Amino acid sequence: MSVSDTTIAAVSTGRGGAIALIRLSGPSAVSVTDTVFRSVSGRPLSAAAPSVLSFGRISNEAGETVDEVLAVRFQAPHSYTGEDMVEISCHGSSYIQQTILSLLLAAGAKTAAPGEFTQRAYLNGKLDLVQAEAVADLIASDSRASHRLAMNQMRGGYSKEFSNLRAQLLELASLLELELDFSEEDVEFADRSRLHGTLSSILNHIDTLAGSFRQGNALKNGIPVAIVGRPNAGKSTLLNALLKEDRAIVSDIAGTTRDVIEEAIDLNGTVFRFIDTAGIRHTEDTLETLGINRTFDRLRKATLVLLVTECPTPTDEIIQEAHDLNLTEGQVLIILLNKADQSSEAESSAKKTYITSALNVPVFILSAKESGSTDALEHYLGNYYTDTLTSETVLISNTRHYGILTEAHRTASAALKALTDGLPTDLVAQDVRETVSLIGELTGEINSEDILRTIFGEFCIGK
Amino acid sequence: MSVSDTTIAAVSTGRGGAIALIRLSGPSAVSVTDTVFRSVSGRPLSAAAPSVLSFGRISNEAGETVDEVLAVRFQAPHSYTGEDMVEISCHGSSYIQQTILSLLLAAGAKTAAPGEFTQRAYLNGKLDLVQAEAVADLIASDSRASHRLAMNQMRGGYSKEFSNLRAQLLELASLLELELDFSEEDVEFADRSRLHGTLSSILNHIDTLAGSFRQGNALKNGIPVAIVGRPNAGKSTLLNALLKEDRAIVSDIAGTTRDVIEEAIDLNGTVFRFIDTAGIRHTEDTLETLGINRTFDRLRKATLVLLVTECPTPTDEIIQEAHDLNLTEGQVLIILLNKADQSSEAESSAKKTYITSALNVPVFILSAKESGSTDALEHYLGNYYTDTLTSETVLISNTRHYGILTEAHRTASAALKALTDGLPTDLVAQDVRETVSLIGELTGEINSEDILRTIFGEFCIGK
Repeated sequence: MSVSDTTIAAVSTGRGGAIALIRLSGPSAVSVTDTVFRSVSGRPLSAAAPSVLSFGRISNEAGETVDEVLAVRFQAPHSYTGEDMVEISCHGSSYIQQTILSLLLAAGAKTAAPGEFTQRAYLNGKLDLVQAEAVADLIASDSRASHRLAMNQMRGGYSKEFSNLRAQLLELASLLELELDFSEEDVEFADRSRLHGTLSSILNHIDTLAGSFRQGNALKNGIPVAIVGRPNAGKSTLLNALLKEDRAIVSDIAGTTRDVIEEAIDLNGTVFRFIDTAGIRHTEDTLETLGINRTFDRLRKATLVLLVTECPTPTDEIIQEAHDLNLTEGQVLIILLNKADQSSEAESSAKKTYITSALNVPVFILSAKESGSTDALEHYLGNYYTDTLTSETVLISNTRHYGILTEAHRTASAALKALTDGLPTDLVAQDVRETVSLIGELTGEINSEDILRTIFGEFCIGK
Repeated sequence: MSVSDTTIAAVSTGRGGAIALIRLSGPSAVSVTDTVFRSVSGRPLSAAAPSVLSFGRISNEAGETVDEVLAVRFQAPHSYTGEDMVEISCHGSSYIQQTILSLLLAAGAKTAAPGEFTQRAYLNGKLDLVQAEAVADLIASDSRASHRLAMNQMRGGYSKEFSNLRAQLLELASLLELELDFSEEDVEFADRSRLHGTLSSILNHIDTLAGSFRQGNALKNGIPVAIVGRPNAGKSTLLNALLKEDRAIVSDIAGTTRDVIEEAIDLNGTVFRFIDTAGIRHTEDTLETLGINRTFDRLRKATLVLLVTECPTPTDEIIQEAHDLNLTEGQVLIILLNKADQSSEAESSAKKTYITSALNVPVFILSAKESGSTDALEHYLGNYYTDTLTSETVLISNTRHYGILTEAHRTASAALKALTDGLPTDLVAQDVRETVSLIGELTGEINSEDILRTIFGEFCIGK
């Protein structure tokens, strides 16, 4: 049943551990292993039952023991790749790993390319392409949100969504083809208004999926949060308060420029990338203007925007500042009234109520330099995406998928326009066929060497 | 049979791989796992046969899938630690590993201390202490030589050597004790000359083992090779020639000072740490003198010394230079006649013959700046230790063992001296008992919490 006649081998575990795992897949996986492996009772792996671990030795050409290992075979198609597979767990020494791998290669195995195990699983029908891509995301996941996105994608929710879309498109295409076959007779089989309705609904569906990319991508790679505000409003103090020592700092990302600092923080399972920006003000200073331009650049890419203001600032100035940010539709604004100690509680509270109703955005009163002051904000952020991301959510987080959906949106729109404008059926059908082919690329029902090479080339070795 | 009533858990593989392995050991290993694991057929791990892999899911408290994994249980005493054990192989995501580990800890497992699995194997009698120490060396081994040393130690050759030593000592001690019991009667049971012979042979044995430490330690950590010679003799050119690109550079070690460069190279399975030193010459310059002093310091620690000279240099000057190095007994000198192009072939060859016979050291003629010129030297070095290190060789490479053997050498010498001087038997017996106790510490027949903590504290987590 296997599509490959070669046997591949690779170390599948990371560097520096106590134990390492070497995997083989392909028709000779067991026989290649048996050139170097014997169980303590002297039996080859081929004599062991599938899925049962054998304790034994790996020996080199001179018969010297390289390591004592556990080895197990999986019989096609009951394996990850759908082929015969072997897993060898040995000690984590770099020398031992490389020696065992060299012995396996000398016995006829080939070095696995990145992602080649998963590629074989896909080619053998164990996973579709979207699920295979999710494997790489799952391995890279470092927060509850990125993990759940990958898990949802791997468990087939996405694939089903895409398959449904493709089925709808195929039905539409076949109706149009039917009409084309009889076009000489000048008969319109299909009800044009029904075609119009179906195509509209497909377009809507594509729209929703493509539209989820901003959020999906942000959840996968960390939500970009721009911290903006006037100079000295307390932006850096806020960032420091958010980075308090008992908080898990996921990573420190070197800013592309010295004046943009980015820090990733995991709040309740979602990673937020806080970007501290240069203060915004009108200035004649060229260098400072460059910094402010950069601030606006980061601002445009942010999903969340924290506008840091000071409590004593007049309400209308704050509202004007918020308007001046010129946020786009998908961006979420949160206003912080900082330096709470500089106003009375009643005054701040009244200001908060007013701004909330005027702009319809959440407002937090805080004093960033005091510990615990950012708790309410953190709680709000930590729960912001939790509700949207259940185990059923389909959010596009893969750039390849987004690219294809954007393209499919273009071709489906063209088809709808052709239909609306009453253009000949063959023109409509051509756009629909293109859309079908694009959606087929998503799940891999239509694939090419190039696509596969690109997708699996980004995997790590050994998976 | 297990000595522990706690169950430990840890990730045993390195960071960043496609697959990770989580291990549990202890009486609740299986029941702890079963709080989060179910096979695809819905069965707990406790219902699976030992050593048979089950494919299934790890779920969190909310019933959501954390990962799809392979799990296997080992039944005491048929496991690495001798206790009930479980191995879970999951995806290599840091989030998944940490989540599964947290779930296992929440279900009652404890985080394993470094080396705790191996410590339990030792306490349960699966390995003696010397073998347990070899496991850490095996995991750290990065060359054929360091691997073979660790493998020899793990396979029991060392332990047997130490046990024999201890048995000899115990026999001696019991003879002496017997004599003491009857000392009132002024009878000398033991033949003093036979006792003397036995003790001498034991002392010899200890001597040989302790004496092998310089070589064993060098093979384990890399043979230190000092490259010395006059300024401009071509020392740095030689180092660059040895480091040629097609050679595996094991590591770049930051010198303790700017003027000492150290590079590790694997030649035919043995790692050599080449140390390029400041040129040696008499100078009034204080800074340069400091550099030269440092050169002599490195020189004293080197196992091999490559003296780089120039072909045109008069023979007696070269011989004088070699003498001036004041090498100690264990150090091996190799003389290089560099810049071969500056002398006639006949002249260089005659010089080589003369120096070889005068100093009884190997001499190589080369031109370090020409490619291929260092081949003969590399071949010589690469084979230098290969013959000494067979799978039967017992070379002490562990600092703890060396320390104990040095101390045992002192007490055994004292016993021999007391015997020779005709001192009372109880004085001799006391020194012999001390020696017995020291050798017992080696294999762990005599152990203490402190010793175990020190030994296993240097292991990596998960082993």
